[in-house]
Amino acid sequence: MAKQARAIHTRRLILEAAGEVFDEFGYESATIAEILGRAGVTKGALYFHFASKEELARGVLGEALTTEGVLPQESRLQEWVDVGMVLAHRLPAEPLLSAAIRLSADRKARDLFGTSWPGWIEFIARQLTEAKEQGELLPHVDAERTAMLFVSSWTGVEILATAHPEGESLEQRIALLYDMFLPSVAVPGALRMLDTAPDRGARVWRAHRAQSEEAEAAASV
Amino acid sequence: MAKQARAIHTRRLILEAAGEVFDEFGYESATIAEILGRAGVTKGALYFHFASKEELARGVLGEALTTEGVLPQESRLQEWVDVGMVLAHRLPAEPLLSAAIRLSADRKARDLFGTSWPGWIEFIARQLTEAKEQGELLPHVDAERTAMLFVSSWTGVEILATAHPEGESLEQRIALLYDMFLPSVAVPGALRMLDTAPDRGARVWRAHRAQSEEAEAAASV
Repeated sequence: MAKQARAIHTRRLILEAAGEVFDEFGYESATIAEILGRAGVTKGALYFHFASKEELARGVLGEALTTEGVLPQESRLQEWVDVGMVLAHRLPAEPLLSAAIRLSADRKARDLFGTSWPGWIEFIARQLTEAKEQGELLPHVDAERTAMLFVSSWTGVEILATAHPEGESLEQRIALLYDMFLPSVAVPGALRMLDTAPDRGARVWRAHRAQSEEAEAAASV
Repeated sequence: MAKQARAIHTRRLILEAAGEVFDEFGYESATIAEILGRAGVTKGALYFHFASKEELARGVLGEALTTEGVLPQESRLQEWVDVGMVLAHRLPAEPLLSAAIRLSADRKARDLFGTSWPGWIEFIARQLTEAKEQGELLPHVDAERTAMLFVSSWTGVEILATAHPEGESLEQRIALLYDMFLPSVAVPGALRMLDTAPDRGARVWRAHRAQSEEAEAAASV
């Protein structure tokens, strides 16, 4: 691996370990020693990338606003569905993503670093504004308020799904959330075309992975 | 005050102080000393009611499932709206209620005491089942899943409203949540009759207080 690629890889290893530890212990009780142990890197390597626990938390939050895997669609509402469904699919397997929610919900961490929610609300408000311009939204719908309410609800669904995993999967619950919101915001013609099946996130994510692998294979030839 | 009334009053003072402290510091960092200081009661009085911090947390959670203030309505859907709107009205002024959410969302506290969410989901599922029997719900609506999704969303809205109080009030946000859910679950005839104005909770709560005071005055004559 080239030097730069190795540095990016190490940084990622450290962030993933930090995500796991913040997620399990909360911000206050998380220690650099625990993160070091899980990342399997040297103390020097960790401090080269992150000078403190605070910087680690900022790093984790910085990774949280990701729409990786969401492919462009003709319908902006379908893209909105895909963002939430892909995240619901990825989150249970990626501690970096769930750690960002845990840090945002933690009062002390929040006071230090803020939360990733305003970024999400802004992003989804933009999607909904574009959907409105394309005629997909009912005329009375306020994109900003709907985005705020959606991000709030998505977060609550994730928190209860984690607290009570004996019920439905996060993907099933988020699919139901879209089925609840959509009839109140979408024009009937747009509504009919949307795919909100619980496995939508998994299918979109697989298609994205296949595309990425093809691109990598093409680049290495 | 009679001896029993005084004991109830003291217990309430302690729980309210515990709610404040759990809410501010989280479960781990909360101390009995801090709770004692805020309650303004003796150590003996506190330990008479609660043997440990664990018991205090259980006491706080026990107070969380409250529908106080919700008056019977012809429409079960209106009662459902009233439960969520009265709580949205009361919560910002009652640390005991917000502390219960904080304890439920706290991974360590949750492992020890469970959460108040299953109780809430069960209560609202019952309301929605009765609404269905009265013909207020669309035929495809599943009362349990809708209740689970609603309690999740309500919780997320509260968490984001606390994290970002610069936006709309909790009452405005919860009113919007009902406006989002209701068209997807209620038959049009029932929907038209519902009052989901942001000040609904305040009005219902005032009516309940007035009734209670009248009843107390009548009893003391």
